[in-house]
Amino acid sequence: MRMYDIIVKKRDGGELTKQEIDYFIDGYTKGDIPDYQAAAFTMAIYFQGMTQAETATLTQAMVNSGETIDLSAIKGHKVDKHSTGGVGDKVTFIVGPLVASVGVPVAKMSGRGLGHTGGTLDKLEAIKDLKIEMEKEQFIKNVNEHKLAVAGQTGNLAPADKKLYALRDVIGTVDSLPLIAGSIMSKKLASGADSIVLDVKTGSGAFMKTLEDSESLAREMVNIGNSLGRNTVAVISDMNQPLGFEVGNANEIREAAEILQGKKVEDLRNLSLELASHMTVLAEIFASYEEAYETLEQNLENGKAFEAFRSFIEAQNGDLSMVDDLTNLPTSSHHIEVTADQDGYIAEIDAESIGVAAMYLGAGRSTKDDLINHGVGITLKKKIGDAIKAGETLVVLHSDDENPDSSIEKVKQAYIISNEKVEAPRLIHKVIK
Amino acid sequence: MRMYDIIVKKRDGGELTKQEIDYFIDGYTKGDIPDYQAAAFTMAIYFQGMTQAETATLTQAMVNSGETIDLSAIKGHKVDKHSTGGVGDKVTFIVGPLVASVGVPVAKMSGRGLGHTGGTLDKLEAIKDLKIEMEKEQFIKNVNEHKLAVAGQTGNLAPADKKLYALRDVIGTVDSLPLIAGSIMSKKLASGADSIVLDVKTGSGAFMKTLEDSESLAREMVNIGNSLGRNTVAVISDMNQPLGFEVGNANEIREAAEILQGKKVEDLRNLSLELASHMTVLAEIFASYEEAYETLEQNLENGKAFEAFRSFIEAQNGDLSMVDDLTNLPTSSHHIEVTADQDGYIAEIDAESIGVAAMYLGAGRSTKDDLINHGVGITLKKKIGDAIKAGETLVVLHSDDENPDSSIEKVKQAYIISNEKVEAPRLIHKVIK
Repeated sequence: MRMYDIIVKKRDGGELTKQEIDYFIDGYTKGDIPDYQAAAFTMAIYFQGMTQAETATLTQAMVNSGETIDLSAIKGHKVDKHSTGGVGDKVTFIVGPLVASVGVPVAKMSGRGLGHTGGTLDKLEAIKDLKIEMEKEQFIKNVNEHKLAVAGQTGNLAPADKKLYALRDVIGTVDSLPLIAGSIMSKKLASGADSIVLDVKTGSGAFMKTLEDSESLAREMVNIGNSLGRNTVAVISDMNQPLGFEVGNANEIREAAEILQGKKVEDLRNLSLELASHMTVLAEIFASYEEAYETLEQNLENGKAFEAFRSFIEAQNGDLSMVDDLTNLPTSSHHIEVTADQDGYIAEIDAESIGVAAMYLGAGRSTKDDLINHGVGITLKKKIGDAIKAGETLVVLHSDDENPDSSIEKVKQAYIISNEKVEAPRLIHKVIK
Repeated sequence: MRMYDIIVKKRDGGELTKQEIDYFIDGYTKGDIPDYQAAAFTMAIYFQGMTQAETATLTQAMVNSGETIDLSAIKGHKVDKHSTGGVGDKVTFIVGPLVASVGVPVAKMSGRGLGHTGGTLDKLEAIKDLKIEMEKEQFIKNVNEHKLAVAGQTGNLAPADKKLYALRDVIGTVDSLPLIAGSIMSKKLASGADSIVLDVKTGSGAFMKTLEDSESLAREMVNIGNSLGRNTVAVISDMNQPLGFEVGNANEIREAAEILQGKKVEDLRNLSLELASHMTVLAEIFASYEEAYETLEQNLENGKAFEAFRSFIEAQNGDLSMVDDLTNLPTSSHHIEVTADQDGYIAEIDAESIGVAAMYLGAGRSTKDDLINHGVGITLKKKIGDAIKAGETLVVLHSDDENPDSSIEKVKQAYIISNEKVEAPRLIHKVIK
């Protein structure tokens, strides 16, 4: 077998065999196949696509390229949730305790990474003393006892994907649907969950801007999961504006905790209930989506979900005083209001610009050596569809800088005000099973 | 400027600017742009193509990447001829003396390379003592005095093309029309001729199998030449069978010399006259193609063309006794006849298989360290359209091996005999100016 022939076969629109795909992934991971052949190959895939069978085979090959996490010591049906990423997305901190509250074990392995705000681990570290590094035995013990643990990802998961993604990133082949789907799913599958719920974002603030593209990505991923023996459901949710009202690290933990205490922030709460319902149905805790939704909603009201959150924080050594009184969470020295220049209705809030404004304040990393400032962030006061008057507050910047001019400018760019009344965007666009 | 953006622009079907193309060629030649980005870029070009303007700009950039040969010390209008390659193609040895015989200077720089038979230089070296290495001054003096000289290519011509071609060859992006055209033309343009006549082969034995593809390639190359200030004409000629009757090194020199002495081997003679006519018209020796053709044909009959050949061989120290008596050229120890198994008409002669059979005999190189055997080769006794009887000779193998079984097998595979009468293929399909 020669890589040259595999490239030409794909270039000419052929369907690759398992042997050919395995040959590529194995050879590329080992360094036997050079970057330049992988580069030409991924560009050929960009143009010719991959069949569902090829995509699933590629994903499995990337899983096989490294370690896989064995969660068999955890009792019950493990369900993982993955989001394709958006601004203000603190759903993990709500969904985890929520499904734990009905007995579904959640063994969450997360990362830090670059971005507008920190990753899941950075946000959690807004809670003083919370430990995210632990031995595997401790991690499993925590999940068994508290149904929820969050730890830094260890192990060499899907190294083929890591190497291939780094290449695709510098040669313009990131935007290939089967490659995106395979990349995401290879990491999820290597992480050992039995079932997977995907939150695929759509809209101006999402990786996929159109519903059509988001749906295609969702279908690819659901197909991969189901083909490889994991029940997989994808929820396509709106990302035409930040999710909820808070962006930042402590800010997002605070808002998540409030939801868990029963606060009704509509989009954030509804999306969390939607995702948690699918997770608990996949875990066979409930027979139907409706039954799941009802019970989970009750657990937000009756304190059970919040209790699961407390129990998880305590087990990981987090300072409970910060959770019990959210004003103890880190905060900033300045609170700066950005106001509207005109009357009207909020027509658009560019999530990406809000994210960048938060990063400028110090909430995220632009290079991997940057330090996260947990106390800074942005509180939105108006969302799409809201009426606004000139001089009224659009957002509050939580800043340690007295004059965060570049963030103010970014936020002002983000908001578009219309004279006409505007409908709030629909939250859940579609569910793909 | 970033290579990443240039790749994505081409991937998305954009037209690149001169600045962008120059940035790529310059950076890639210097090693600042890595192979993996060039790989993705050429695959994007494979799918999206290039406009005529882009292709010409790319070609000029590749010319600029290295040295160019200054032929200004040669008097008169220099015309170069280039063939896209085929089996039995000894046209250079006929056309060179032929146009020299009417005063057109031919400064031919050639290579060796891999192939079924040797390259132009290898074939010439079938003539004892002939020197193809000489100082530039000597080369120019020879052209000025004898109107024809052939030398090994020196100088670092179009190194960008050399590097890029080596990459394309292992990643499946050779078959891109603008890249093929740019590659050929960059070397021609760097070689310094004023005008160029291209012999673009078409058919089963050619790089381009269909007339449509051959015509597209011809048009690309003519466009490049004309865009960059060289009058360029392309003749699309048939390569559905070997050209002429002889394949090998001494074999091909012998057949070329016979044509120059007036022998009427129809396809070879007609193609040579066709190409030479365009060359002499471009050189403004004749006002019309018809006038050129008539005079050149006379020069094959009246000995002038052969005299130009002798004069060139003598100037390069070649043994004239081999030219004056062609039986003195190197020959082989065995002559093996391969005969037909059935009656009928020759329907196909796969040129590639004939070429491989010749290589097996030792006429060509399969690796660059192989030595050429000048005396071996193949004489075709039948060509497409000829009637044949079972037991009649198809070809004679000139072999130093008593039992060249693999060559015999290849030759037998090459010939397809039909019961129905078959037309000989048309020789000149089209002329593109």
